[in-house]
Amino acid sequence: MSRALTKLLATQSKAYVRDLDAIDLHTHVYLPRYMDILRARNDVPFVRPGIGGERLIILPAEQQQNSTMSHNAGISAGRPIGGEYWDVNNKIRYMDRHGIRTSVLSLANPWLDFLPLEEQILQAALLNNDMETLCRDSDGRFLAFGVIPQDSTMAVEEVQRVASDLPHVRGVILSTAGLNGKGLDDPEMLEFYRAIDRAGLTIFLHPHYGVGNEHYAEYGHALFLALGFTFETTVAVSKLVLSGLLDQVPDTLRLLLAHSGGTLPFLAGRLDSCVEHDAAIAQNLQHAPSVYLKRFYYDAVAYHEPALQCLIDFVGSDKIVFGTDHPFFPPAKDKDTETAGNEDLSELDWRSTLSNYETMVNMNKAVQSAILRENAKKLMGI
Amino acid sequence: MSRALTKLLATQSKAYVRDLDAIDLHTHVYLPRYMDILRARNDVPFVRPGIGGERLIILPAEQQQNSTMSHNAGISAGRPIGGEYWDVNNKIRYMDRHGIRTSVLSLANPWLDFLPLEEQILQAALLNNDMETLCRDSDGRFLAFGVIPQDSTMAVEEVQRVASDLPHVRGVILSTAGLNGKGLDDPEMLEFYRAIDRAGLTIFLHPHYGVGNEHYAEYGHALFLALGFTFETTVAVSKLVLSGLLDQVPDTLRLLLAHSGGTLPFLAGRLDSCVEHDAAIAQNLQHAPSVYLKRFYYDAVAYHEPALQCLIDFVGSDKIVFGTDHPFFPPAKDKDTETAGNEDLSELDWRSTLSNYETMVNMNKAVQSAILRENAKKLMGI
Repeated sequence: MSRALTKLLATQSKAYVRDLDAIDLHTHVYLPRYMDILRARNDVPFVRPGIGGERLIILPAEQQQNSTMSHNAGISAGRPIGGEYWDVNNKIRYMDRHGIRTSVLSLANPWLDFLPLEEQILQAALLNNDMETLCRDSDGRFLAFGVIPQDSTMAVEEVQRVASDLPHVRGVILSTAGLNGKGLDDPEMLEFYRAIDRAGLTIFLHPHYGVGNEHYAEYGHALFLALGFTFETTVAVSKLVLSGLLDQVPDTLRLLLAHSGGTLPFLAGRLDSCVEHDAAIAQNLQHAPSVYLKRFYYDAVAYHEPALQCLIDFVGSDKIVFGTDHPFFPPAKDKDTETAGNEDLSELDWRSTLSNYETMVNMNKAVQSAILRENAKKLMGI
Repeated sequence: MSRALTKLLATQSKAYVRDLDAIDLHTHVYLPRYMDILRARNDVPFVRPGIGGERLIILPAEQQQNSTMSHNAGISAGRPIGGEYWDVNNKIRYMDRHGIRTSVLSLANPWLDFLPLEEQILQAALLNNDMETLCRDSDGRFLAFGVIPQDSTMAVEEVQRVASDLPHVRGVILSTAGLNGKGLDDPEMLEFYRAIDRAGLTIFLHPHYGVGNEHYAEYGHALFLALGFTFETTVAVSKLVLSGLLDQVPDTLRLLLAHSGGTLPFLAGRLDSCVEHDAAIAQNLQHAPSVYLKRFYYDAVAYHEPALQCLIDFVGSDKIVFGTDHPFFPPAKDKDTETAGNEDLSELDWRSTLSNYETMVNMNKAVQSAILRENAKKLMGI
């Protein structure tokens, strides 16, 4: 176990958290097959050789940064990546060091969104098969969220195939763009939601595109990731709720929201109030928005205790699952993070992971246990 | 006192909240002089006659709605307004009914932002003088935030005049656009922040323009107000913090954030983490973002208890002041809110106001007292 984690746990009088045995539902991997796709590309998203190792360029903002830079400067665009992105043995070492028993892997953004539909259909099947094999051979360390093509009919077919043929794939990761690029509130999403519910799978909803991006350029990626991502989830889910589509889907639909639901646990009361004061919107809904929001699941990737407590107060501790967002937000490899390359980051303490343990050290045993593992076991059928 | 409020308080065993004696720091008025400006205009923002009374069109989204409608339909654009917007006797009746002893009035958005600078300078002085007279003659029921022209030099002059000549004006309301339309992180804002601090006044920061507006059109104003407004405050303040300007201003600067800081209390941990992982941004700052955010004041316009508790956990109960956002989010006047006109809304129970009392009924006496009045007395020098 990591020295910092041991120290964190030692400061607690509560012995029960010392054996963390956590289940991580927000942890990404770029499967080798996916890395090959990225390495073969010259447009975002892509991987290219850089100083001291490979670099990954995936964000819309990075695309512009890259294209406006000279070729030499372009070498330093994006972020340095190493085995933490694709090597599952690296992931296992990180997990062992950070008290994580099982990781429910998902492909990282932008998934297959950038590929032509025919290729999406093919690659989704291949990647989901890869994921199944990887998990099956992992001695219980891995389960997975699969990927789906962005087409409502083909997505339903892949969901049905996953449910019947790939027992270690327990859900699918979904972009806020939805299946047709028209968002989660597109009526064509209905059959997909119903298929997910029938199959007993979970949708892991994750941002990629950002909201308010025109405001963040002067501040690197800090605001894009801190605000743009969380706003994006908030907007997409709010529109889903206000569309009334959820009144046409069983309330057992399992939807897991990344990054503690963006900002929804904080804004839910204001959203209720604004809808209540807009009769034209309210009359389309059977319930206040917060009623739907309380049906969903949320990861505990909140980074400070007031936010996690807000989430618990809003949705209840039985709807929250531990997550790390590994391999993003890695430890600084040395003073100049831009020059270090393919060092094995699994040998370092990840402060971003530790901070998500720190948020729950003052919670009681039942809440910790629920968030660290028990809720995940129920949701993922472990 | 309102029947609903009496009922709310009666459900509590805690007798001390029955005499609310609240001080409302988030309550707007369209002074008669300002109404005259709006009535004389044909472009947003403006007031026009409508079915059953006047209608106010102030939001960017409403402008488009209005211009794409036929003349007849245009009559129904915007929102119906009555005396609750400009009649201080109406405000007093509303206050009496809802347990509010003192209201710190501010002009509502979009303030003077739409006027040519010369007119802004003139109207700011006139409106601030009007506000002073109104408060002075109110037997202690009103204090005020003034308005300032959007020019860093002239704003400093008006701040100095307010501080020396207008004792009932205890601060100024400021748009997220800042003084030069370049945001709160524009270096030209520095002298203004310093002048506010020297004068012992408070900045009341308020949204108007929205962030993410391109996503909200299909859902009336509900998402623009619930999300666009709160995102706007979050973005503007985050940029102020990340700019490093606050390291050049005394940490005594009094900045009050509307709507419980938008989403900042929830996102503060993630913002810290994202900045910590972006060395180029972090090295410009003396502290983590949350250190600056904890210096600010926040209103309690949060609409549900998990958000208010999050705010308390993050910033402490001594930085939070009660607010109502009156006269916005009025009670529905009858089944068809679009046809009722100039009924006296001060005779009705305002659910939006009640919900902001409801958020604190489970807090202990010291916290309630601090938020309802004691913090406001210190901040406003009452």
